[in-house]
Amino acid sequence: MKRTTALFLTLTFAVTSAAVAAQSPDREALMSMAQRLFAPLPEVVDNPDNPLSEAKVELGKMLYYDPRLSQSGFISCNSCHNLATYGVDNLPTSLGHRWAVGPRNSPTVLNAALHRTQFWDGRAADVEEQAQGPILNPIEMAIPGEAYAVDRIASMPGYVKWFERAFPDEEKPLNYRNIANAIGAFERTLTTPDRFDEFLKGDAQALSDDELAGLQVFVDYGCVGCHGGTALGGDILARFGVVESYWEATREFITIDQPTMPMDVGRFAVTQDANDLYVFKAPSLRNITRTYPYFHDGSVWSLRDATQIMARVQLGREMPEEDLDKLMAFYQALEGTIPEYALKLPILPASSKHTERPVFQ
Amino acid sequence: MKRTTALFLTLTFAVTSAAVAAQSPDREALMSMAQRLFAPLPEVVDNPDNPLSEAKVELGKMLYYDPRLSQSGFISCNSCHNLATYGVDNLPTSLGHRWAVGPRNSPTVLNAALHRTQFWDGRAADVEEQAQGPILNPIEMAIPGEAYAVDRIASMPGYVKWFERAFPDEEKPLNYRNIANAIGAFERTLTTPDRFDEFLKGDAQALSDDELAGLQVFVDYGCVGCHGGTALGGDILARFGVVESYWEATREFITIDQPTMPMDVGRFAVTQDANDLYVFKAPSLRNITRTYPYFHDGSVWSLRDATQIMARVQLGREMPEEDLDKLMAFYQALEGTIPEYALKLPILPASSKHTERPVFQ
Repeated sequence: MKRTTALFLTLTFAVTSAAVAAQSPDREALMSMAQRLFAPLPEVVDNPDNPLSEAKVELGKMLYYDPRLSQSGFISCNSCHNLATYGVDNLPTSLGHRWAVGPRNSPTVLNAALHRTQFWDGRAADVEEQAQGPILNPIEMAIPGEAYAVDRIASMPGYVKWFERAFPDEEKPLNYRNIANAIGAFERTLTTPDRFDEFLKGDAQALSDDELAGLQVFVDYGCVGCHGGTALGGDILARFGVVESYWEATREFITIDQPTMPMDVGRFAVTQDANDLYVFKAPSLRNITRTYPYFHDGSVWSLRDATQIMARVQLGREMPEEDLDKLMAFYQALEGTIPEYALKLPILPASSKHTERPVFQ
Repeated sequence: MKRTTALFLTLTFAVTSAAVAAQSPDREALMSMAQRLFAPLPEVVDNPDNPLSEAKVELGKMLYYDPRLSQSGFISCNSCHNLATYGVDNLPTSLGHRWAVGPRNSPTVLNAALHRTQFWDGRAADVEEQAQGPILNPIEMAIPGEAYAVDRIASMPGYVKWFERAFPDEEKPLNYRNIANAIGAFERTLTTPDRFDEFLKGDAQALSDDELAGLQVFVDYGCVGCHGGTALGGDILARFGVVESYWEATREFITIDQPTMPMDVGRFAVTQDANDLYVFKAPSLRNITRTYPYFHDGSVWSLRDATQIMARVQLGREMPEEDLDKLMAFYQALEGTIPEYALKLPILPASSKHTERPVFQ
């Protein structure tokens, strides 16, 4: 074969495969690309400092669903991170003790153990540290102190036994840190592997053509810069509003009455570092179709609108409708399956006569 | 055998068995007595006007757990009738929209379908009628009207399909009555058969000696007059405070801050009939160990105290400690098992862009 013929054949082949690709994507190439950028969800997220055991996870599940971890006896972790609605409350920002309206949207607990930091401003290192926060926050669960939380739980013989089982090597297993450790352990099992993970593991047919086209758009626009890795986000803290103010871009989307809140300065409130002004954690896009409304203030209900806003304020681009269509299809592929056992309500230990009573005010 | 010998033997036998009975109860006799007074719980409680189907019960379960049946999007049926805590919230009286404190204690939803009437004052005929109430009550779920509730549910394609499946013969299956019918259908499956039912079905060994001694006390004092039947209560409306005022008898037990409430007139508020003054439904004692605090106002946390108060204000008697001990043992035998599938949180249908947004105020 002469070189010209070879060249001709190569060109023909290239042209043909480009034509085919326009209709059906090159699944193998997209899969390799995706495998470089993302990773399949694990069944559980280990933490050497808080090793998982069946007893610890079950105890954590009980605590997660127990409203007695709030001062009122009305609010549990699951109130704002409802597993029936993909680990969120689908409210702009959450309600708490005495109907307080919190300043930020409740992020989903699903796959949260994979995040490099916790909370929108990254002020906690891991889910164990995170779990210590809301219980004591006066506008969330409002327990008046660590000792109070421990006393209330320790007053229930049913719980005392579980702490002994869950922390068998500790002399005083029931302490505030272990309440959070048990909840954290439960959260470490809340991953939602599904079709996208099958794709990443090598099943090139696991996603539809539309979803794959969306994946390509997702990468082409550079969304993956902040929303990469196993959770498609949760790894980095980034300024929200690089090209223009997120505040200006989102105000028009607020459709429900919410208390007027000042513009959220983000991580700046934690560090007082000017570089952290308006810096928030780039959230995971796993299950993003179900974790509306969007952004740290829950200002935007439509995922399409939220995506357009991101293109505008982060990338300085206006996304054409057809690209938005494709991204919407890709997001569908990110819906996962919540572990069955996590959805099964535990029967909670009975209170005793020593259990501190609920306080509403 | 001469007649005198036969008589002697009979007497000897009678004395011996009486002596034995003092230690271990006559299980067969107690079982026959119990079978006359009570009945085992059915698996489900049928209603010819709202026939059960798998689809209807599953839909009802979704609605039961869905906080979007409240104006705020924060309160579901399960908030106040939490199946993780035996169908109650373990609060004196419940919290509702805008942190309103309701006037009465949330009764358990478990076995409630067996009650002859619903609510503490018997103002609804059955669970289907009951379910229509709290959704619209401004201090409970606070949905502003039937049409609003229907619109919100109808905005979610996931729900529309379920209503078609659950009410296949109806032209317009999605209406307010059917929202309540589906929830009612779910509640009709929430019976909790367990050891006491095995006993009633003929297993004389299903209860312990202590529990049987308590059963005897329960009958001897006449508790069974109001707390008989399948649910050990739920059948009759009776004046609370026959011998002395329930109000005087219970005030000293109030240990937590609650808004000052006037004395509850009970069914009188419904009928304006002087005979109904302070008349309330005698609640079911099924799972009574877990449905604290007690009475229509949740004023008393201890079941022992509540029992003593009942003896005093209803029967004019002071119960000796040893009889209270026995009753406490009997109550243990009334703890049942909640159906597994009911405890499994359903994944709720996604909201759509047409779904009315939550309103906090």
